[in-house]
Formats: sequence, structure tokens, C-alpha cells
Amino acid sequence: MKLGFIGLGNMGAPMARNLLKAGHDLTVFDVVQSNVDALVKLGNGRVKSANTPAAILGSGVDAVITMLPAAQHVKSVYLGSDGILSANVKDVVLIDSSTIDPMSAREVSQAAASKDALMLDAPVSGGTGGAEAGTLTFMVGGEEGLFNRMKPLLQEMGKNIVYCGGAGNGQVAKVANNMLLGISMIGTAEAMALGVSLGMDAKVLAGIINTSSGRCWSSDTYNPYPGVLDNVPSSRGYSGGFGSDLMLKDLGLATEAAKLAKQPVPLGSLAQQIYQTFSLQGNGGLDFSAIIKLFTK
Amino acid sequence: MKLGFIGLGNMGAPMARNLLKAGHDLTVFDVVQSNVDALVKLGNGRVKSANTPAAILGSGVDAVITMLPAAQHVKSVYLGSDGILSANVKDVVLIDSSTIDPMSAREVSQAAASKDALMLDAPVSGGTGGAEAGTLTFMVGGEEGLFNRMKPLLQEMGKNIVYCGGAGNGQVAKVANNMLLGISMIGTAEAMALGVSLGMDAKVLAGIINTSSGRCWSSDTYNPYPGVLDNVPSSRGYSGGFGSDLMLKDLGLATEAAKLAKQPVPLGSLAQQIYQTFSLQGNGGLDFSAIIKLFTK
Amino acid sequence: MKLGFIGLGNMGAPMARNLLKAGHDLTVFDVVQSNVDALVKLGNGRVKSANTPAAILGSGVDAVITMLPAAQHVKSVYLGSDGILSANVKDVVLIDSSTIDPMSAREVSQAAASKDALMLDAPVSGGTGGAEAGTLTFMVGGEEGLFNRMKPLLQEMGKNIVYCGGAGNGQVAKVANNMLLGISMIGTAEAMALGVSLGMDAKVLAGIINTSSGRCWSSDTYNPYPGVLDNVPSSRGYSGGFGSDLMLKDLGLATEAAKLAKQPVPLGSLAQQIYQTFSLQGNGGLDFSAIIKLFTK
Amino acid sequence: MKLGFIGLGNMGAPMARNLLKAGHDLTVFDVVQSNVDALVKLGNGRVKSANTPAAILGSGVDAVITMLPAAQHVKSVYLGSDGILSANVKDVVLIDSSTIDPMSAREVSQAAASKDALMLDAPVSGGTGGAEAGTLTFMVGGEEGLFNRMKPLLQEMGKNIVYCGGAGNGQVAKVANNMLLGISMIGTAEAMALGVSLGMDAKVLAGIINTSSGRCWSSDTYNPYPGVLDNVPSSRGYSGGFGSDLMLKDLGLATEAAKLAKQPVPLGSLAQQIYQTFSLQGNGGLDFSAIIKLFTK
Repeated sequence: MKLGFIGLGNMGAPMARNLLKAGHDLTVFDVVQSNVDALVKLGNGRVKSANTPAAILGSGVDAVITMLPAAQHVKSVYLGSDGILSANVKDVVLIDSSTIDPMSAREVSQAAASKDALMLDAPVSGGTGGAEAGTLTFMVGGEEGLFNRMKPLLQEMGKNIVYCGGAGNGQVAKVANNMLLGISMIGTAEAMALGVSLGMDAKVLAGIINTSSGRCWSSDTYNPYPGVLDNVPSSRGYSGGFGSDLMLKDLGLATEAAKLAKQPVPLGSLAQQIYQTFSLQGNGGLDFSAIIKLFTK
Repeated sequence: MKLGFIGLGNMGAPMARNLLKAGHDLTVFDVVQSNVDALVKLGNGRVKSANTPAAILGSGVDAVITMLPAAQHVKSVYLGSDGILSANVKDVVLIDSSTIDPMSAREVSQAAASKDALMLDAPVSGGTGGAEAGTLTFMVGGEEGLFNRMKPLLQEMGKNIVYCGGAGNGQVAKVANNMLLGISMIGTAEAMALGVSLGMDAKVLAGIINTSSGRCWSSDTYNPYPGVLDNVPSSRGYSGGFGSDLMLKDLGLATEAAKLAKQPVPLGSLAQQIYQTFSLQGNGGLDFSAIIKLFTK
Repeated sequence: MKLGFIGLGNMGAPMARNLLKAGHDLTVFDVVQSNVDALVKLGNGRVKSANTPAAILGSGVDAVITMLPAAQHVKSVYLGSDGILSANVKDVVLIDSSTIDPMSAREVSQAAASKDALMLDAPVSGGTGGAEAGTLTFMVGGEEGLFNRMKPLLQEMGKNIVYCGGAGNGQVAKVANNMLLGISMIGTAEAMALGVSLGMDAKVLAGIINTSSGRCWSSDTYNPYPGVLDNVPSSRGYSGGFGSDLMLKDLGLATEAAKLAKQPVPLGSLAQQIYQTFSLQGNGGLDFSAIIKLFTK
Repeated sequence: MKLGFIGLGNMGAPMARNLLKAGHDLTVFDVVQSNVDALVKLGNGRVKSANTPAAILGSGVDAVITMLPAAQHVKSVYLGSDGILSANVKDVVLIDSSTIDPMSAREVSQAAASKDALMLDAPVSGGTGGAEAGTLTFMVGGEEGLFNRMKPLLQEMGKNIVYCGGAGNGQVAKVANNMLLGISMIGTAEAMALGVSLGMDAKVLAGIINTSSGRCWSSDTYNPYPGVLDNVPSSRGYSGGFGSDLMLKDLGLATEAAKLAKQPVPLGSLAQQIYQTFSLQGNGGLDFSAIIKLFTK
């Protein structure tokens, strides 16, 4: 396939490289010229650059993948004066893998439909490591037939490709899952810190929780207490992993979506505040399991 | 063995029946005479009653098990003027299966040690169903050799017997696990209600969470959204199960222990407030997964 | 002065009537035709209607006042294709009295400046009663000389006209004050409900608080406990006053502004969640002091 | 009058000195001998010491005042084996000025009544400064006639003597007021920090709040933002004043009382958690308005 790719940052660049490796020719756009140059060079003739998002369409692509930091960039890239939808997009498949709020995703999706484009929202989890290794999880919203048709393409960048329902539902699934993740992580941190301060051994406590009703991914796979698990950020000074400020961003999306849906999310909202406090104290760059530092001396 | 048993309520009565079934003779005490009468009758000569906790010791028992509602009852039964420790308890094994705060458990344990008794704190999970079926989980604190010696006895009432460390650690493990459980349940309820209100199918959303980082026991084994799982309280009107007011009690123990340990538990504390609000609105008798009603219309 | 007025709803209509009473001629716009018709009829030749916001400028006004429900309407009225700024606005004074987030206010203000218009943000407090009586408080952001020049005009609609600093600061002041108001009201409700449930007389408790360090407007002027004060919503079934859903809106603006400013507001955020829960239970139309119902049986 | 005084710490010592100054003879008890010695020396023959609380009664006093750190000390001093109520207390007036939970206060009061003593609970506000200057506020619970009879005595130590109703109500009033104070202080800190971070001048913002519906003691009399008010802790590095750990203690009493009363106090509970977090980070010795440090860089 001939593909367009917009957004060649920490996540987008390795995703684009995996598509290149799979044999596709690419036309790419990024506001940072060095990001573009690096991929063009790597492409050895198979990667072209475009001056605007709209110009990618002019090069005759079958599908365009976008991977951008926030809703404002997505709106600009799709709806702006030089944006994707200003070009002829009839029957072109547009896949937005940015993590944004569901309402914005649906707004862009409707605009795309009105131009006869075919659109999927497909946010990912798995971080830069998953992007490099091609093992990302894609949560996909949009028309089911289109999902089935595009699944092989997404499998070139990821391992677990999940259909979530109509337009925007990929974003809904991600936002709901990650809100619960943020809550569970803080809850696990509170429980571990409390138990240890009351005299329990951290590994023994984790072992009991992991075979009881408190069991969760944050406890059994990514425990925030140092020394409980090997090869997780808590055992290497909270470096690497999923940054606290990224969790803060996702909790911000969740609470924003909840506000628009008139839905209470008291723990999700307090979790957002706790990560905001942690960030203000200068810890936004640490892995999100470092939140346990707020509960230990 | 000759055993004493104090506290023949909803939990204690079936536990005592399982000990009887296993062949032990019992001497029992309860403030409700009909509870005592029922067991004496069932015992067919193998169950005697005592007029006070202390009197049980006079009957020459090897061990005494207590199963009481709250710390005040435990203190009264052990430390009161007719209490267990007012009798000769040298080398008698005392097992308290009540769920109380760790500090009170340690206070009673120290008092027992000063009288040369051998004490374990052994709170359970599994509810009245587990008590009937003999499948309770016991979380046990105290001296490890004593734990090993008593494990066979506990196995006559339970299936999963876990050693948690020194005196009081059984209570610590229970309180830490159940605090995390309460947080996870509310978090799952918020995430499910948010996702559905934003247009997702509840089963699809649960499926995604259960294979992602939001995965937890409250989501994959006890999902609060009606219709996601069969045979859980959410699919039968939130009857049966683990009552909201019992979760409220455990969250009260957790926040109390945290206060004494000078430990912040912001989500645990807000979870306690949410269950308190739910209880004030008349819902304390519903299963604790019914908390999702606060987030749905 | 010849004035434009856009937004003739519950707040805007009485404000416009006060300007008419003060002797100004008006050109008005509203999406609801009956709102326009009512004012034109009342004007008896001194009120004209315009078909678009931009058309008001064509009629040669000195200043335009806007009073709209939310940021999206403000942006549409100012920045839309038929919006105010699409006309020649050189040296025209634009006063937005809508309550919106400070960032949106500043965005509109900058757009106005780039067209050589003179802009103030001037949100009000005092409700529909204050709008009728001309006793509103205006919190005003923008250039100080312009503020001084426009103060007499604002005094025709309000009593207390406060200068808050540069563009957007009127909105900042309102959002900060109302967030604290929401927190204080819930705090007062919790304290009153707690004290009464512990056996105190409500009036005695309020009297003590009002002469102590817990003293606040929510306690001494607008007490939420029925019977403590006369002539407040709590003494007439929580009718009239400032609706819970309006407080919810303002708390939403505050938490949104805090998120953009990377500022933690844990109590403000929980207050927003509490009003959201109250609204979901069908109480959004009651006065905001009715929140005490969550804490009483 | 001949008076007993138990508890000569930071608060009790200056209160006792004021009674001495007013002409009363004292018999005193404290676990710290140097506290006792200092007062005996100052008394110049008019202050005697007793070896136990009970021994004070033997010296023939008309009334005993107690000023102790926490409920456990109050219970020990009144109910212990050498405690006040172990002596003949018929018609003796017992005044407990400790700040403790209302339930414990009522338990002690009932025990006193069963021995025909006359008891008042009379916690104070005003800090060590007020204790020195004799300007404390006393919140008094107990029989009204007894209150009226003892008011002159309390006026020798305080300025504002408030009757709160039956036994324990002095504690209820204090706990309710101080919970609202803690909430208002954090709320004011959030509002000030938010407003300033959004570009407002702190004094201007405080001025607007103080004439609007956000007005409260924490804002207009004790503003936490440095430089807004002179002569408050925020303008001298948060030294002096009412320590954060004392506010934490009072919030602990409030949430404990709420739990026993089955009363939700979500903001009070979160306020307690916020002060607990602040204390864990090493700030418990700062004035309680220093909580704004959690919201500023």
C-alpha cells in the first residue's frame, strides 16, 4: 500500500519504521524537519516528504496514519486550512492513533465522513518500547467492516488489535482503562505503603493481595513498591516506563470526558489531582508508579 | 482436640459446625442464648456451654477460637473481668478470627503473651458462604512455629491459610487488601459507567479492560455493571455477596489504622466517604458492587 | 450612547432593560426571536434588532455588551463568520459579561485587539435578582483606562464594579471566588450536618461558627441548614437562589482552568464531583445550598 | 476558690498562671515534674502539688480543671485506678478543657455524674497566645445552670465563653468549627494559588474574595498567601500560629466523630488526608496556613 504518515515523534517514528519494514512506501509530514529527514534517509528512496498534511493526499495514498500529541494538533492536521480534509479524501482511509478525548475524535470523524473519507480512531497502549517492537495494543473505533479490512495493516505495528465499536469508541476504551489504571496504581501504592508502615514485609503483602480480591495489574505486574518485582520501574529508581505526566494527561482526558458526559468520577478526579500535585513537586518525569513516594518517607 | 469457641453469629456458627464435623468437642459462649442452644442441640452431647469466656478455660481446652463483630467485643472477651485472660491460659492457643484494627490486635496479643498464652490473629475472607463450605481464606499473624502447628486446625474451616508475619499482621494484610478492593471496586464502577455513558457496550469495555492494564478482580471476577458477568451480585439486583456496610466497616478500619500510623491514604479515605454516603441513602444492605448506582441514572 | 446587546436570556434581558431605562438606544441580537421581539416592543422605537452579531456594528454603535451561556457561544459570536470581529470594530468597546474560562476570554480579547477594538471581560455575580435590580457585581479585566471610562456604563447595571487587572482577570477572579464558595458551602453543610447529628442545636452551632474561625459567607449569610436564617433558600425548600447546576458549571470552569495552569485544586475538584453526583440524582435545579441533602437523612 | 489543675503543658501552664493571678489557690498534677516545680515556685506558697489526680481531691478543692493532649490521657486521669473519679467527688465541679472526641467526653461525663460530680466539657480555641493573654474562647457543654455558675471562673482564663448545650457539646462545636476551618483554609489556599498562577495580583484577588461570596476567616483574617496581610504567619515564613499537626489532630477527631455518627464528611476527610500528606513531607511544625505550599512552586 501507499501510505501517508503524519507525526514522527517518539511514538510515530518507530511506528512508521515498522510500516516501512513491512514493505509500504510512505509520504510523511512533521513540523520538525529533522524527524522527516531521518525517515527519508532511512527509506532509501521509498519515503517522500510533503509540505502540508493536505499535500500527502495529492501524492495518491491509500491510507493516512496520524500520531499527534493532543486534540488541538489533531484538529489542526485534519480540519485546518492545509489540513487533510481540505484535500480530496474520497475513499481514503484515515487512521488517527493519537490519544485524545472522545468528543474531539467524533467531531473529526464526522467531518471526515462528510468528505467521504473512511475514518478509524485507533489510540494505542504499550509506550515507545511497544512502538519499536511492533507490539502495541490498538483500541479501534469506527465501522466494523473497515476495522476488519485495516486490521492487517495495524498488525504490522501492533500485536493486540481490539474492536471497540463505533467512531470514538477507541478513545473511550483507552480513557476508561487508563483512568482505572491510575486509580488502581494509587490504590496499590496506598495499600502497600500502609501495610509496610504497619509492619508487614512488602513481598509477603504483595503475595497476599495478588491471590486475593485486591489483585490488579498495578499490584501483580507493575508493583510500585521497590524490590517486590524485578524488571519494573520501581526496582530501577522509577526510570523508563510510563511517565507520571502522561498519566496526568490521560486522567485529564478522562475527567474532561466525564464532565461533558455529566458523569461523576470522584476517584478518577482525585487521582488526577494527586498526579497534578506530584508533577508540581517536580516528579512528572518519573514512571507513574513513583506516585508511592507521596505515601512513603 | 478440645476446643473453645466464642461468638456464634453468622460467621462463627458455621465455623464451629465445621469443627464439630471434624470431630472436635466444643465448649462455647455467646451473648445470644439461642445461638448457644442451637449448637448444643446439634452437638448431641459433644458441645457444652459456658457462662463466661473465662469459664471456657476452666473446662480444660487446648485452644479457643473467637469470632466477634468489632474491637470493643474482642477487648471485652479477652481483657474483661470475666474474660479469657482472667483465667489460667498458660500454653493455651488463642485464635482471634474477628476483623479488627491491627493496633487492638497487638494490644490483646501482648496481654495474652504476658499470661503465657499462645496467640494468633487470623481474620478471614470469604463471607458466610465460605464459612458454611469451609473454604475461607485465613490471614494469620503470630509466631511462625505456632502458625504451622495450627494450620491443620484452620484447614478444617478454610482452604487458603496464609502466613503474614508477626502478631497483628493478619489484620494488616486484611485491612490493606480490603482497602485496595474498595478502591478498585469504585474505580471499576466509575470506569464502566463512564465508558457506557460515552457510548460503549459494557461487555466489550469489560473485555478490553480485563486484557489491559486496568484489569482487576473487581472488573474480571466481580464486575459491578449488570449483565457483564453471570452469577455475580450485579446480575441479580445486588443481593447476596459482601454487603456495602461491611466494606464501609473495613474502610473505617483501614483509615483508622492509617491515622494511627500517620500514613496518607487519600483514595482509601474518599472510598470510605463514598460508601458512607451510599449507606446514608439507604443502600448499606446491598452488595458492595452496587456502588455503581451512584454513577448511573 | 448607542449600544449593541447580544444575548437576551434570563440575565441579559434585565440588564438590557436597565440600559434602556438609563436612556441608551440599543441594537440587539439573540437566537431566540421572542426575546428580541419583547425588547423591541418595550423600546418603543429606541430598540432595533440585527440579523447577525456583525450587523450590530453596521448600525454604528459605541459599545457592545454580550451575555452568553458558555465559551463556545462567546467564540461563535465574536470569532464566527458573521461574528462581531468580522465587522469593522476599530475603537468600538466590547464588553463580555458571560462567565467563561480565562483562557477563552484571553483568546477573544487578543483577537479583538488585533482588529483595534477595545475589550473588557466583565463577568457578574448577583443572579437574576441582581440583574433586575441593577445591583450586580462586575469583575472586570482589561486596560485600566478603559475600565475607568466604562465604569459609569456598568454602574447602570450594577452596584459594585471591581477592577481585577489585565485581560481575562475578571474571569479569573470570578472562577477563584466561586470555587472557594462551592468548597465553603459543602464544608458548611458537612459541619452543620455533623454537629446536629452529634446532638447540637443548629442555630447554636451556626452562632458559634459565625463568631469563630469557621466563619464564612456560606455560614453567616446563606446557611444551608433549614431554619437557621430567614429569607434564604434553605428556609423555603431550596427554591430560588443560585442553582446547583450553575455552581457545577462554575466548578467545571475552575477545574478546567486549573488543569491548563497545571495547578492542583483537590478540594475544588472534589466539590465539582459532589455537585455532579447531586445533579445526577436529579437535584440540579435546587439552590446550591441544598447540597446539605447529601449529608442528612 | 480552691482549685485543682491537671496538665501543665504549653496550654495548661499559662491557664493555671492566670488562675493564680486571679487569686485562687491551686493543687496541681502533671507527669512532668519540672512543669509542677515551676508552678509551685511561682505560687510562692499558694500552689501545692499532688502525687496523683485522685490526691488532688483529698486536698479539698471546689473545682478541678484538666488540660490534656488526647482522649486516652483524659480517660486515664478521670477513670484510671488513681484517677479523679476514684476519689470522693460529690458536688465537686470538674472542667475538662482538653480537645477530644465528643463520644469520649460524654463517656467521662456520665461516669462523673454516676459519682455525683458536676462536669463541664470546655475545649478552647486561641492557642498558646490566647492562653497567656487570658483571651481564649471556651466552648462549653453541660448543664446550663452549672455553666452560668462557672462562667466567671472561665472568664479569668478567656474572653469569649459560649454555651453549646448538653454534655459533650463543647467538643462537638469545636470539632465542627475546626473541620470547617481546615476546609476553608485549604480552599482559600487553592483559590489564591489558582488566581495568582492565572495572572492576578494576590492582594487584588483577596480584596475581591473578601467582599464576595467566597469571604471567610481564612481569607480575610488569616490569608495564607504571603504579603496579603501583615502580622499573620504567611507573612513571617509560617512560624507561630496554629501548627499544621494540630489541625491534623482536629481533623482526625472530626472524621472519627463522623464515622461513629455514620455521617459523610467528604471534604473534611480529604482535608485530613491533605494535612497528613503535608505532615509526612516534614511540614507538620509550620502554621496550618502553610498548606498553600502544596499548591505553589
